[in-house]
Amino acid sequence: MAVLEAAMALCRETGFAGLTIEAIAERAGVSKKTIYRWWPSKGAVLLEAVFDAAASIAPHGDTGDLARDMTAQMMGVVALLTPQDASPVAAIIVEAQRDAAIADALREQVIEPNIAHFEERMRSAQRAGEIPEDADLGAALDLFYGPIYHRLVFHLGLPDGDEMRARVDLVIAALRAMGSAQG
Amino acid sequence: MAVLEAAMALCRETGFAGLTIEAIAERAGVSKKTIYRWWPSKGAVLLEAVFDAAASIAPHGDTGDLARDMTAQMMGVVALLTPQDASPVAAIIVEAQRDAAIADALREQVIEPNIAHFEERMRSAQRAGEIPEDADLGAALDLFYGPIYHRLVFHLGLPDGDEMRARVDLVIAALRAMGSAQG
Repeated sequence: MAVLEAAMALCRETGFAGLTIEAIAERAGVSKKTIYRWWPSKGAVLLEAVFDAAASIAPHGDTGDLARDMTAQMMGVVALLTPQDASPVAAIIVEAQRDAAIADALREQVIEPNIAHFEERMRSAQRAGEIPEDADLGAALDLFYGPIYHRLVFHLGLPDGDEMRARVDLVIAALRAMGSAQG
Repeated sequence: MAVLEAAMALCRETGFAGLTIEAIAERAGVSKKTIYRWWPSKGAVLLEAVFDAAASIAPHGDTGDLARDMTAQMMGVVALLTPQDASPVAAIIVEAQRDAAIADALREQVIEPNIAHFEERMRSAQRAGEIPEDADLGAALDLFYGPIYHRLVFHLGLPDGDEMRARVDLVIAALRAMGSAQG
């Protein structure tokens, strides 16, 4: 849809601070009134655009190789956040720290569905014997995704493919070690 | 110092959005001109206050028990970020996403010294044989601290002491498993 594409393109060009409803309307060739009929704020427009992008770019695959699938999915997330200063997804995450409505929508529309897909992939790995039956999936979620956000928040540079794979291998080793230690 | 204490107290009461130089001056009993002589912005005042708080509340101890020390240090970080909506430290982290000068100062004055202390503690654990000599300390940093920021960013609720300890145990198990797998 033209409005969503215009919002994404403008955010990449000017950052979230430079994004305005007026600029979105002009780029999309519609009136400001049309935009306000459907979205309450520029954040709401961008959130919907980001929701579409996140759904199409970062799915959880299941090739039977958990380390490969998690590395691929999380490098898809990293791509959505790169470059950090011009990423509409990073902009929405920042906006969510200041706007509770954006935070709730982001969590309900993007994060919670992603967590559900993650848990599905982990249960498949449990059935396949790649990780123990009693692996703590809440801890696994934190350890898999944590490095991305630790680095994002403090501008430490997002992991490249090799670093991501090294972290994924560590987490899987941890889940196996704890399982066998307890079992 | 009165100005820093005033900034911290006001941030806890009104959040960063409600914090102003005028309110800080009034609470501290000084003129706005005095504040502007030493700090360029409300963010700069709060950053200095946060720097003092972070240094005193979340040191890296070394009791010889790595899991206990890391859990204690990170629960100190969690305390600095709690409650999230009224935490001056969380406010500075958000501000750093929009203000490159705050981001640089935060990284140089708080994050990088903390990473140096973390690495010192990890090398001590390597000498004591708690983790392998060749453990990847960059990955360890991401995995230890990642969960805090993943949860902070998406408002998933910060870990309590039991959850933190479970994650710390997982990371240490991972470092041991990878070391023995390679060694």
